Amino acid sequence: MKLFSYWRSQATYRVRIALAIKGLDAELTTLDLLKGDQFAQHYRALNPEMVVPTLIDGDHPPLTQSLAILEFLEEQYPDPPLLPSEPYGRARVRAIAQVVAMDAHPFIVPRVRKYLEQELKLDEATRTKWLTHWLETGTRAVEGMLAHEPRTGRFCHGDRPTIADLCLVAHLTSAQMLCGVKPDAYPTAARIFTTCMQLDAFAKTHPRKQPDAPAAA
Amino acid sequence: MKLFSYWRSQATYRVRIALAIKGLDAELTTLDLLKGDQFAQHYRALNPEMVVPTLIDGDHPPLTQSLAILEFLEEQYPDPPLLPSEPYGRARVRAIAQVVAMDAHPFIVPRVRKYLEQELKLDEATRTKWLTHWLETGTRAVEGMLAHEPRTGRFCHGDRPTIADLCLVAHLTSAQMLCGVKPDAYPTAARIFTTCMQLDAFAKTHPRKQPDAPAAA
Repeated sequence: MKLFSYWRSQATYRVRIALAIKGLDAELTTLDLLKGDQFAQHYRALNPEMVVPTLIDGDHPPLTQSLAILEFLEEQYPDPPLLPSEPYGRARVRAIAQVVAMDAHPFIVPRVRKYLEQELKLDEATRTKWLTHWLETGTRAVEGMLAHEPRTGRFCHGDRPTIADLCLVAHLTSAQMLCGVKPDAYPTAARIFTTCMQLDAFAKTHPRKQPDAPAAA
Repeated sequence: MKLFSYWRSQATYRVRIALAIKGLDAELTTLDLLKGDQFAQHYRALNPEMVVPTLIDGDHPPLTQSLAILEFLEEQYPDPPLLPSEPYGRARVRAIAQVVAMDAHPFIVPRVRKYLEQELKLDEATRTKWLTHWLETGTRAVEGMLAHEPRTGRFCHGDRPTIADLCLVAHLTSAQMLCGVKPDAYPTAARIFTTCMQLDAFAKTHPRKQPDAPAAA
């Protein structure tokens, strides 16, 4: 497999963790989203939305959208599982993943930050406030779903990592890298983050460990 | 089943269509998101994120996040299917659904419109430009995935509706209701929209047909 990646992309980090947990190797091709590598004609042919990640699996059509890729990996490589087997648990795990992926992450991606700066002419302080607000809103919502919930265990759902943990860790990593925000005010999320980061699959795929991460990142 | 709904909510429309296609009945409880019904303590206990939809299935824990609910319905009530059986097709359908659900819809929900108005103090023209921009970006991206793709059929993927069609129709309906934007510039998306709206499951669950829709909507 081949993965088109950008070191700081939250969505790509989710996929890197899933590949690592499932013991799958993917050759990395890095794109610099700030320089606009994603708009090149050859990449656009793979990913008409011109975003990362894109996963190429042999001669099959390109796979796009990180959560769709996670579901694909789960279906094709079910062991170890990243979703529980029980239907209400699966729904809960997907919902937690989607709270950060759909209701927080969209607001911090490069194309939105560009719109805030170039179209709305917002100054840096106002832009940082925007990023912090939506990242924080997402963390607060997830904490509300995790705290005082008997189904929360060492991880978001029980005692093994699921796609909820992948998304939560990638989200909290973005919050820390972009705004210096630590999850201290959200004890359950913070505890699970620490637990996850002790696992190689989360630690070794960290944005700062990527070949395209700047030395001072 | 019980569905907490708001007439104009794009995410709830997706779920109403899925229920209708699968022949499932759900008793509707409507919330007025503009009045803040979603912040009531009893609703927050069901949905810590305080958004719609929430689906209650008997005594089981509440189900939240529309795409997680669609996957749940697909797993529990597989007939008629809303996902193809082939893995690369499933991944494609989920990716199309996520382009509108994750990369367009988040920007137009009430809490974001409120932030634009009350925090950023943007005037109405600038706010409408924002809505139109992100709705259009989503439609353009989906058109890019649908056009010149042999897997596109009468619907987004082949000749029966999938979750991609649910999300596309709900997205284009929002675009039309919020900004008066028709998908004329996107011929494949427009054609599929027309095909879907000829089906009862899409037409009868339309936002304007909801009990809480204002008479003049």
